[in-house]
Amino acid sequence: MIRFNCDYLEGCHPAILQKLTETNLEQTVGYGLDPYCEQAAGMIRETFSCPDAAVHFLVGGTQANTTVIAAALRPYEGVLCAETGHINVHETGAIESSGHKCLALPPHNGLITAAQVAAAVAAQGDDEHIVKPGMVYISMSTELGTLYTLDELKELYHTCQQLGLYLFIDGARLGYALAAPACNITPADIAKYCDVFTVGGTKVGALFGEAVVINHPELNRNFRYMIKQRGGMLAKGRLLGVQFCALMENGLYFTIAEKAVQQALRIREALRSKNIPLFIDSPTNQQFPVFTKAQIAALSQQFDFALWEPVDDEHDAMRICTSWATTDENVDTLIAAIENL
Amino acid sequence: MIRFNCDYLEGCHPAILQKLTETNLEQTVGYGLDPYCEQAAGMIRETFSCPDAAVHFLVGGTQANTTVIAAALRPYEGVLCAETGHINVHETGAIESSGHKCLALPPHNGLITAAQVAAAVAAQGDDEHIVKPGMVYISMSTELGTLYTLDELKELYHTCQQLGLYLFIDGARLGYALAAPACNITPADIAKYCDVFTVGGTKVGALFGEAVVINHPELNRNFRYMIKQRGGMLAKGRLLGVQFCALMENGLYFTIAEKAVQQALRIREALRSKNIPLFIDSPTNQQFPVFTKAQIAALSQQFDFALWEPVDDEHDAMRICTSWATTDENVDTLIAAIENL
Amino acid sequence: MIRFNCDYLEGCHPAILQKLTETNLEQTVGYGLDPYCEQAAGMIRETFSCPDAAVHFLVGGTQANTTVIAAALRPYEGVLCAETGHINVHETGAIESSGHKCLALPPHNGLITAAQVAAAVAAQGDDEHIVKPGMVYISMSTELGTLYTLDELKELYHTCQQLGLYLFIDGARLGYALAAPACNITPADIAKYCDVFTVGGTKVGALFGEAVVINHPELNRNFRYMIKQRGGMLAKGRLLGVQFCALMENGLYFTIAEKAVQQALRIREALRSKNIPLFIDSPTNQQFPVFTKAQIAALSQQFDFALWEPVDDEHDAMRICTSWATTDENVDTLIAAIENL
Amino acid sequence: MIRFNCDYLEGCHPAILQKLTETNLEQTVGYGLDPYCEQAAGMIRETFSCPDAAVHFLVGGTQANTTVIAAALRPYEGVLCAETGHINVHETGAIESSGHKCLALPPHNGLITAAQVAAAVAAQGDDEHIVKPGMVYISMSTELGTLYTLDELKELYHTCQQLGLYLFIDGARLGYALAAPACNITPADIAKYCDVFTVGGTKVGALFGEAVVINHPELNRNFRYMIKQRGGMLAKGRLLGVQFCALMENGLYFTIAEKAVQQALRIREALRSKNIPLFIDSPTNQQFPVFTKAQIAALSQQFDFALWEPVDDEHDAMRICTSWATTDENVDTLIAAIENL
Repeated sequence: MIRFNCDYLEGCHPAILQKLTETNLEQTVGYGLDPYCEQAAGMIRETFSCPDAAVHFLVGGTQANTTVIAAALRPYEGVLCAETGHINVHETGAIESSGHKCLALPPHNGLITAAQVAAAVAAQGDDEHIVKPGMVYISMSTELGTLYTLDELKELYHTCQQLGLYLFIDGARLGYALAAPACNITPADIAKYCDVFTVGGTKVGALFGEAVVINHPELNRNFRYMIKQRGGMLAKGRLLGVQFCALMENGLYFTIAEKAVQQALRIREALRSKNIPLFIDSPTNQQFPVFTKAQIAALSQQFDFALWEPVDDEHDAMRICTSWATTDENVDTLIAAIENL
Repeated sequence: MIRFNCDYLEGCHPAILQKLTETNLEQTVGYGLDPYCEQAAGMIRETFSCPDAAVHFLVGGTQANTTVIAAALRPYEGVLCAETGHINVHETGAIESSGHKCLALPPHNGLITAAQVAAAVAAQGDDEHIVKPGMVYISMSTELGTLYTLDELKELYHTCQQLGLYLFIDGARLGYALAAPACNITPADIAKYCDVFTVGGTKVGALFGEAVVINHPELNRNFRYMIKQRGGMLAKGRLLGVQFCALMENGLYFTIAEKAVQQALRIREALRSKNIPLFIDSPTNQQFPVFTKAQIAALSQQFDFALWEPVDDEHDAMRICTSWATTDENVDTLIAAIENL
Repeated sequence: MIRFNCDYLEGCHPAILQKLTETNLEQTVGYGLDPYCEQAAGMIRETFSCPDAAVHFLVGGTQANTTVIAAALRPYEGVLCAETGHINVHETGAIESSGHKCLALPPHNGLITAAQVAAAVAAQGDDEHIVKPGMVYISMSTELGTLYTLDELKELYHTCQQLGLYLFIDGARLGYALAAPACNITPADIAKYCDVFTVGGTKVGALFGEAVVINHPELNRNFRYMIKQRGGMLAKGRLLGVQFCALMENGLYFTIAEKAVQQALRIREALRSKNIPLFIDSPTNQQFPVFTKAQIAALSQQFDFALWEPVDDEHDAMRICTSWATTDENVDTLIAAIENL
Repeated sequence: MIRFNCDYLEGCHPAILQKLTETNLEQTVGYGLDPYCEQAAGMIRETFSCPDAAVHFLVGGTQANTTVIAAALRPYEGVLCAETGHINVHETGAIESSGHKCLALPPHNGLITAAQVAAAVAAQGDDEHIVKPGMVYISMSTELGTLYTLDELKELYHTCQQLGLYLFIDGARLGYALAAPACNITPADIAKYCDVFTVGGTKVGALFGEAVVINHPELNRNFRYMIKQRGGMLAKGRLLGVQFCALMENGLYFTIAEKAVQQALRIREALRSKNIPLFIDSPTNQQFPVFTKAQIAALSQQFDFALWEPVDDEHDAMRICTSWATTDENVDTLIAAIENL
């Protein structure tokens, strides 16, 4: 069985495992105050051209999202997001569990707009009976694999600044976004046009780990308390530093992401050639073909995909993911199978 | 200025004030353990034909809703409700503040259906990444003044029981619902077809106060701890008991509610006669005419309404409320003004 | 049975009931934005000589404490208080329910000191694994009826300001404190030497109600959202305004409190004359005699006290409370009974 | 610099790194549903003789503690623990952040007793104004390195069962406890005499990871939802399974723990021989000598310890930890240095 159902099926890139092995018996202080975390933070600041940003390392995405949002908001504030946003649908109410409402906006292709944000703030009207928007959360790439353009991002950030909202970019798949040929946003743009973003390691080569990069000093105040309280402070914090050092070295993070995106685009091309409709046109490592039940049955003998959404009695939208670990051989096998449908 | 903008503009029904005055200097134990609360609980049990129900008295609606929902749900559970539900839009995220997500369903005329509830539970699919529905919250009457029919209520309750969900009826305007000519639900039905409901006093004659009536023994377990923790335990709890004694005596609660509904229906009739469109066809004490801006300007010289929702550049939906305190004279004046538009 | 077991046994002072009756059928806007709340706020500002303070009205003490503390603290901050503090022992964990730890200090006679506060902050040492003190909570009078001196209060406030902590005075019994002959603090001092305090109505003549007076502008930012979210925003908010207008008019609040304290001191004198030991020497409306079980049995035939704390097999500390509603006749009867023990 | 300041200075035991490397490129399902987690759970059930227990794997201790406690308690319940308990002092209020009060009891040598638990429950007296104890939390070994005896544990569990409380054993250092010569508790006893316990990996050979073992079926209900919501569900959950497989294989967990304890006892012996007082007499891998400032200065040139607690102007209690990674050579060097003081 060849699995394409998500982008966290394997362990980590060999360069990471090697560095973990090399450093294994070194003694360092705990909780992310070690030299590896410091070095990794520096490499991230350099990669994203944000020399003054604070960088923290957390184990997972839900943890990172909850910690950032809980640190940002006052108790009566909520976070604007797409209805399809990860925090709104796939974190078991972690945000609400920290006391804050997800203020969900209807997305277009997984994306929300500056105009929607402005309208939501206007509709709330500073009425104390209604949750006050305090932050905007977007993903890059989105749950649907789509991308914000540079203009869209700039406009969102500009609107947030005008309205006194934080802008938070969930970069669980940031590598796959920035490495996509269709993306016109650079790493420096990411850091420039938001208050806080994450650099996802779990889905892009690491065993686990998300870097939280905070541009806004107020948001960073006592942030380590927040990490500890929310259960995100790893005793052997250096494990995160070591991994991000390996990922940032010589741009490995983007190299492996680019390869995965290219594989996904080859699969997209095969789907299109076969006239298989796409649930959404994704330019990144996730593809969403709408297969017939018969096609799914046929492919399922050899491949494992994720059911994304039932379309009608005869069709389901499926998700096919590539990742840093996907082999060209497996992609070739899949393409051949698609061609034979 | 004659105010019709809400149903909590005045103090309380004179019978309540009289009883508060008569009992003012009596000494009683605090926190709702006094003879008046006991008596009022008994009268509510009798009125709603639920001899085994537990009855608690809280000061306000947001408090009652939060306390009931926080008592009912496990941390990972959410509450299904209409998008327009009070808990979803007008309680500043009080439910989320207690850790729980409002799982909002698109309503039809403010109402949600058993089919929607069943579909939501099916869509969640016991996937631990998604908030699990644990309760259904409905209002009677709804925020839009509309009513569930007996069949709709039965079906909701039946579905909830099958799916292991609590059904909670927010009765902030229960009097105005049950007293409406269009309502085919009796007080006994309310108690029979849900796990917990409130009997709203604040909007129906009391100075303040909501009775929480719990039919489900598990939900009642240690409920008084919940009341105390959430700030809802009134030191001089008897003030609530005294008020509900007065309201339940000889059906005063329904008598005054019926009068208010009749007044509202007279206003509705005047609006219809004048061919003023209704935003929604409400059979209870809240009416929602769609006025032109000119009409609003004209009426606003003498009357105060609430803006409900902008309709288009030329029209706004307004809310006109009657209550136990509305005088026939003021209704006549309003009707005359509508006729003169 | 004559009850001395607490100071919230009766309804309210007749002046309040009269004013509620007079204003009962007036129409006002809701949620505390009415003219009575505005007037009452002004009277409180004048009484406490704090012209720039914000004044809010909440229904009860637990509600007020939770709302103030939740508004003041960041998620990782806690509130320093006496082990015997109301928030630490008698609010069913309401503060923790809002996410914050009570950092309890061992009190002396119910009081905590500036030195204890400074030591607690030093011990925390800005270590992100330990809850950070963000506020100091004291009561005036304390749960044990005792009083801070002006010097003690000044020193606490000075220390708080130096250490970046808010100082919060819970004034549930503020009237009984300030009206005590032993008190060397004026109303103006209260407002001058803290960031926020409450003026308790429930125990000092009102049906219910606590005024929250906020001196620190940052703490007041969006405070009404907090009130609404925590269930403390009364629909007919004017009921609170009307009551505090009556209490503040011509110093009624202090007049009735002074009478109650004098009654309590007469009882203390009777206890002393009879050589009945005092659990604590309280200068306010609560007295804590240590009776033998036989004495308790004798007195309990006519009087109801509260058991405060068992002392040994033969003795219990009891609480005797007077209040604005205590009659001289009942005090005389009690004193006679004590003399006859 | 040789570090003895904690037991999480290095990476992991080589057997773990090898197994991670071997399995690195395998594709498995995520979130702990993989074969390695299943296998590791089975090995833990066998090791602790609890064939019916549920086993979950979380990344860290604070996460595990918060998740277990939040799953166990109703909103108004608190957790009894030692004042020195990790949840009470070193988790930045994570428990309170989930809404629950730590009900701290004064410990003796880090231990609390069944009698204290019973007294706390009696003192609460089912008074709804006071947080209700719902769970007892103990550590094995404690923060001070001390151990419960089998009789003490049995009595605690028996008392908990009688009073309707859960008993939770935090086993962050469970290996070092059970491997200590002074311990008369077996792994099977641990599972037999509590409702839930953790098997700490982070401090006993793993890169990270705590196994949560739940004996009580009610506590296990929907526990995976809790893990996800609290940010503890690792995408590549198998990393935890793989590590615990390695640790449980052939008793590696206990072998490496035993070695560390023996090293610590050698250090204790050296301290005693030198008449250096012990802050507490610990039979496990943590030792707490009371050094003079001069001794600390001398040793600090070569060794890194943790300051545990200042004793007086001249003395500090320090913590010296050994771990699975401590070398005999470093222990010898330390002992020589102690002898030369």
